Amino acid sequence: MSPAPEVVALAGGVGAARFLRGLVRAIPPRNVTAIVNTGDDREFYGVHVSPDLDIVTYTLAGAIHPERGYGLAGDTTHVIDALGALGHETWFRLGDRDLATSLHRTQALRAGRGLAEICDEVRRAYGVETRILPMSEDPCPTFVNLSGGRRVHFEEYLARDGAPDDVESVDLSDAGSARPGPGVLEAIARADVIVVCPSNPVVSIGPILAVPGVRDAVIDAAAPVVGVSPIIGGAPVKGPADRLLRGIGAEVSARGVARLYAGLCDAYVLDERDRDQLDDVVALGLRARTTETLMRDADVALALARRTLELALDR
Amino acid sequence: MSPAPEVVALAGGVGAARFLRGLVRAIPPRNVTAIVNTGDDREFYGVHVSPDLDIVTYTLAGAIHPERGYGLAGDTTHVIDALGALGHETWFRLGDRDLATSLHRTQALRAGRGLAEICDEVRRAYGVETRILPMSEDPCPTFVNLSGGRRVHFEEYLARDGAPDDVESVDLSDAGSARPGPGVLEAIARADVIVVCPSNPVVSIGPILAVPGVRDAVIDAAAPVVGVSPIIGGAPVKGPADRLLRGIGAEVSARGVARLYAGLCDAYVLDERDRDQLDDVVALGLRARTTETLMRDADVALALARRTLELALDR
Repeated sequence: MSPAPEVVALAGGVGAARFLRGLVRAIPPRNVTAIVNTGDDREFYGVHVSPDLDIVTYTLAGAIHPERGYGLAGDTTHVIDALGALGHETWFRLGDRDLATSLHRTQALRAGRGLAEICDEVRRAYGVETRILPMSEDPCPTFVNLSGGRRVHFEEYLARDGAPDDVESVDLSDAGSARPGPGVLEAIARADVIVVCPSNPVVSIGPILAVPGVRDAVIDAAAPVVGVSPIIGGAPVKGPADRLLRGIGAEVSARGVARLYAGLCDAYVLDERDRDQLDDVVALGLRARTTETLMRDADVALALARRTLELALDR
Repeated sequence: MSPAPEVVALAGGVGAARFLRGLVRAIPPRNVTAIVNTGDDREFYGVHVSPDLDIVTYTLAGAIHPERGYGLAGDTTHVIDALGALGHETWFRLGDRDLATSLHRTQALRAGRGLAEICDEVRRAYGVETRILPMSEDPCPTFVNLSGGRRVHFEEYLARDGAPDDVESVDLSDAGSARPGPGVLEAIARADVIVVCPSNPVVSIGPILAVPGVRDAVIDAAAPVVGVSPIIGGAPVKGPADRLLRGIGAEVSARGVARLYAGLCDAYVLDERDRDQLDDVVALGLRARTTETLMRDADVALALARRTLELALDR
């Protein structure tokens, strides 16, 4: 058997985390490096919250809230409930133990330490062997422009406003002037396989690729690049990818996402249910394969990770 | 009946809060202004904690943890337990809902608002009608000098180290260069009665009086000034007042505290159990009276507050 490849995964939140849970069973967890979106990061109550970094960490630790896909299993919300009584908004449902992670991060950032080092420390404290790298240590908030000239932070769009459908465009300009996080470009250059996880292409993968140097590093890497469709049967599994894809003028389909990734990816995995789109994806110049992509449990995630690596490595 | 007096109370934590709970039943809560020690304030996990302000607020709100005398009744410690798992010290047992108060305060301070305004907002949110004023808005940490040249913040001395007895001196120099908080001097000047609550004279009342202008304002005020002994039968009810009094070379007794307050107070209330010291207190030039001062319930606190006001007003 050939040695397990070194895999770099570009990752957003829930979908990526569930894929990574399978990937770290397909190959040793230490062979995986997740490069994670920080465009969702935002201060709440003066505390630096990094939703996607924490979702990936908690999921790989087996500590994630199983139904919600974010936050910690069994967590309470006593702090934000008390903040609500003091007049604060509480639409971002940050749990108590989850808040501890963010308090730790905030204090360490204020002490002058870097987000990457802090993230590494947290994932080790949670017993996670997989490296988790923030895409950037610079602030790169993603904004969503809505009809009527309204402009909101992505978390306001998603968690506060319930992801309305009047998206006019997505503003990644802060990511567009950020520096890649420590280790990001090096990990990409060294990878044997690069996976674009089944995450929101607009607001999860988009910010990572918007950081100057990252897209070029992926394209220039010797490793094959394989994308996994986040769209099944014309709809996202979770989250507002449909509204955001429409907002940027893309088709809400596996094929529509493949079009966004053509020029970046060499290969593409789409769901069995989207078999009718296989030829269109191949016509984009991508090696493609269909399989079960709805990760309703860890075994499906494992099988999907295996199929994805096999396709990437052309085995 | 004469109208209820306007009372200013110099206050530390638990002892003062229990006294105030009686005072606001003896006269209308709005007639009371508590000027509270902030020498215990300290950052934990990057969050500004004000132990005495919160003890007074929670006690007057009826929300205090009844046995401990600090923190909120029924509070949990999920956040600090999780911070402990991330490698943080957790000797300061900050509860989750209690942390929310401090998070709110920290965020408001960072936004440029003043501690007095924030404290006022919190006490109103908790339904407290009594005005609660921080002695100062400037940082004035109290340090304890121990044998061997060790110097620790008061909360480290008390909560982390368990109040060792090798106190050599107490350093109030930060309070000594702070400015009085908004409204402090005005409240003292306007008062009909000034009460020095049964708090630790060294590290609770001491810092308040160390703030330039406060001691003089109390002495110059037209109002009678009455102290209540925090020592009963040669020992404090709670806390390390014995070790700190010895550390500054004072006698650990009702009479020893009266000596510290001579020149400041006109009158002094001591416990029945210390009746033998009454003449010594009178010899200091203080009008004095004994009564039950061990506030084991709200009714005792009410009776003590009434006796204290009667003595002050010479009724």
